[in-house]
Amino acid sequence: MDGDATFEPCLAGVRILDLTQFEAGPSCTEALAWLGAEVVKVENPKSGDPGRGLGGPDGGDAWYFLQFNANKKSITVNLKSPRGLELVKDMARKADVFIENFAPGAIERLGLGPEVIRAINPAIIYAQVKGFGEGSPYEKNLAFDMIAQACGGTMSITGEKDGRPLKPGMSLGDTGTGMLLAISILGALYRRRGTGTGEHLQVAMQDAMLHYIRIAFAAQARNGEAAPRAGTQSVSTANPPCGIYPCKGGGPNDYVYVYTSRANPEHWRRLLQVIGREDLTDDPRYATPAARAEREPEVDAMIADWTRHHDKHEAMRVIGAAGIPAGAVLDSKELHDDPSFERRRILQTMRHPTSGDYKMPAWPVRFSGSPPPIAPSPLLGQHNTEVLGDWLGLGADEVAGLKQNNVI
Amino acid sequence: MDGDATFEPCLAGVRILDLTQFEAGPSCTEALAWLGAEVVKVENPKSGDPGRGLGGPDGGDAWYFLQFNANKKSITVNLKSPRGLELVKDMARKADVFIENFAPGAIERLGLGPEVIRAINPAIIYAQVKGFGEGSPYEKNLAFDMIAQACGGTMSITGEKDGRPLKPGMSLGDTGTGMLLAISILGALYRRRGTGTGEHLQVAMQDAMLHYIRIAFAAQARNGEAAPRAGTQSVSTANPPCGIYPCKGGGPNDYVYVYTSRANPEHWRRLLQVIGREDLTDDPRYATPAARAEREPEVDAMIADWTRHHDKHEAMRVIGAAGIPAGAVLDSKELHDDPSFERRRILQTMRHPTSGDYKMPAWPVRFSGSPPPIAPSPLLGQHNTEVLGDWLGLGADEVAGLKQNNVI
Repeated sequence: MDGDATFEPCLAGVRILDLTQFEAGPSCTEALAWLGAEVVKVENPKSGDPGRGLGGPDGGDAWYFLQFNANKKSITVNLKSPRGLELVKDMARKADVFIENFAPGAIERLGLGPEVIRAINPAIIYAQVKGFGEGSPYEKNLAFDMIAQACGGTMSITGEKDGRPLKPGMSLGDTGTGMLLAISILGALYRRRGTGTGEHLQVAMQDAMLHYIRIAFAAQARNGEAAPRAGTQSVSTANPPCGIYPCKGGGPNDYVYVYTSRANPEHWRRLLQVIGREDLTDDPRYATPAARAEREPEVDAMIADWTRHHDKHEAMRVIGAAGIPAGAVLDSKELHDDPSFERRRILQTMRHPTSGDYKMPAWPVRFSGSPPPIAPSPLLGQHNTEVLGDWLGLGADEVAGLKQNNVI
Repeated sequence: MDGDATFEPCLAGVRILDLTQFEAGPSCTEALAWLGAEVVKVENPKSGDPGRGLGGPDGGDAWYFLQFNANKKSITVNLKSPRGLELVKDMARKADVFIENFAPGAIERLGLGPEVIRAINPAIIYAQVKGFGEGSPYEKNLAFDMIAQACGGTMSITGEKDGRPLKPGMSLGDTGTGMLLAISILGALYRRRGTGTGEHLQVAMQDAMLHYIRIAFAAQARNGEAAPRAGTQSVSTANPPCGIYPCKGGGPNDYVYVYTSRANPEHWRRLLQVIGREDLTDDPRYATPAARAEREPEVDAMIADWTRHHDKHEAMRVIGAAGIPAGAVLDSKELHDDPSFERRRILQTMRHPTSGDYKMPAWPVRFSGSPPPIAPSPLLGQHNTEVLGDWLGLGADEVAGLKQNNVI
C-alpha cells in the first residue's frame, strides 16, 4: 500500500462548461471533477439544477444533488436573456469542454447548439447526452433512467426466472451512461493535447445500456434466443450451487451468495467440507456440474441447511476462507456503517455549508493508495464572482450589475 | 448529424500492456482500444485468457471473448519461464500502461508487482483490479461479478418489494468496475502528457459498486434506513403511475414502462387522455401524486386496462407521442434485430477469422456522428512477431526461437 499520499489532480487547468442536470450529465462531469477539472455548472437563477430539490435536510440541497455534484462550482445564468446567452458563449471561448443533457432540440433552440459553439471555439469538445440516439425512431422522446433501462435491455434480464421484468436498483441508465461519456471526453482531451482538434460527442442512454448487457448478447449467440431472466444467477451460466442462500436473522437481506465455478471442481469439494457433507464428495449424483444441475433444488437445500444456522457475515467468512467465492448480501446501511470504507476513504464526508455533514461514496479508484479528496457541492451561484472574474475578467461591480439586471 | 466521418483515434501511440482476463480488466482495456490505444494482451501459451473458452462456435473463441476483446492484439508469454518474465519486463519499459486483474497477491508472486514494474519504468501507469480493497477484511478473497454485486449493495436494491434480493442481469461488478478504472487511467495519461509522472491505480469491484448505488445512499439519508427493493420503480421515488404495465402478446417481455413525474402534473393529465379517461382529469381522488399513491393498485389497473389492448411498441409510440415518458421492455433479441442500431453503428459486425461474423454492441458514444469502428479480437498469440518486433526489436528468427523454447 502506497499510503495516504496527496492526490495530484490529473486534469488541472481543464475547464468544463457544464449545462447538465439530474444525473446522467452530472455523474459524468463529477467524474471529471474528482480527477481535478474545473467544472462550472451553469444553472438557472431561480432554482438551479432540479436535482437540488429532490429532498434534502431542512429544504436545503438534496442529498441526491450533493452526491452528483461534489467538487464542482456553480454560476447562475438566465438563458432567456440575450446577455446571459452572450455570457455562455464568452465562456465557451475559454472552455475545453461544453456539455449538456437537455431534452432533444432544446440546446439548439437556445442558440447554443454544436454548430454555434464549435464555430466560436473549434478546439472545444462538445458533448451531449440524450435518451435515444439521432436516427432512432424515438430520437425526440424524453427518457429517464427507467425508460433507458426498459428500452436498453437491462430490465429484460433482471427478475425471477418465472417473474416479470424488474428494474435493476441502480441508476445505470444515468450513471452508466455518464461514465461512457466521461471516458470519451477524456479520450478527446488526450488527443487534443497533441493535435489541438475539438470533437462532437453524443451518447444516448438507450444505446449505452447495450454496452452493459454484452453478456446477454453473448448468451443469445449460443442459441439465437433472447437472454432470459436468471433470478440470482448469471444470464451466461447456471452452475449450481450458485446463487443466494438464506442466513440466520431472516431479514430482507440476510442472505449469502455462494458461487462454485464450472472451471474449478475444487469449489464443490471444499463446499461439501464446509457444510459437513464430505460423505458426498465422490457421490456421482453430485460429482459434476451437469449432475448437480439436474438436482438443483436438492443441492440448494443442502447448502441452505447450513447457511440458515449462520449469520451472513460468518457464512461469508467461513465459506470464503475455505477458498470458495462467497459474499454477504449487504444493504446501503450496512455499507454506510462499515468503518472499513471510511478508513479507506471509499466513503468520505462532505462538509456542506447548509446541508451539514454527509458521508457518501467518493470516487472509488485509488491513486497511489487513496481516492481523490472530496469538496462540497456548490451552492446555487456560489462562484459567480470568482468564475466570471477568472474566465472573463469581469469585475465584482460588473457581476453585481448582471445580478441586478437578472442576467445571472 | 455530422455524418459518417472517419474516426481519428484518440489514443494513437499509447501502449497498454494488458495482463487481464475475463471481464473487469478486459472491459477496461477494450474501452481504451476503442479509443485507439494499442492494447497488447499477454496470455499464457496453452489456452490464453480463460474467457476464450466460455462457449463459442465450433470450439473457437467464445462470443464472450469476442465482446470484451475487440480491437486488441495478443501475444503469448509463459510467465513461469524466467525468459518470459524478462520479456514482460522489457515490454513494461516501453509501455504507457500496465494492467492486471489476477487473484490477490498473484502478480507480486510472479515478480511483476507495482514496486518492480514502477522501478523499471517510473512513468508507467500501473493499474490493478481486485475483488475487495486493500485494507478491507476481505482483501484476500476472490470475487466474481455476482460476489461484487452481493457485497456492493446492488442486489439489496434489486427485486420485488416483498421478494428476495436478485442479481441485476448485467455484469456491473465487472464492466461497471472496468469503466471507472478506464476513466482513472485516462486521467493519469492526460496528466502524464504534461508532467511525465506515472501512477499506481487500484480499484476493488466491491468499492466500485458503491459508485453505482448512490441513489440508494441518498434515499437512505432521508430516514436513516437501508434503501429497500422497489420492484419496477426507483428506490428514490414512488410516484404512481410508474412502472411496467402488461401489453398484448403476453410474452415474458411484453410490457411497457410508463413514468409520470412528480415535477410535471401534465404527465398524469396527458395519460388520462391517452387511456380515454379524461373524465377523471379533475377528480380529487387522483389529482395529486399523494392521492394516487394511496390508490396505487387502482391507478395501475386503469393503465393496464389500456396497455393490455396494445402491443408494447404501439403503447410506447402512443404514450410517448402524447408527451409522457414511456418505453417498451426490449430483450436482447429485439435489440439485436432492430436495424436502427446497425444503421447507427451502435451494433457492428466483427469479421472474425475463425468464429465468423458476429454482430455485437460497439462503443456506443458517437464521435462526429459515428461510434469508433470495430476490428476483430485477436487469435491467441496472433501478434507475437509483430509486437515483439515493434516493441523490442526482435527478429522473426528470435521470435521463432522463443516459441521453440516454450517461452512464448
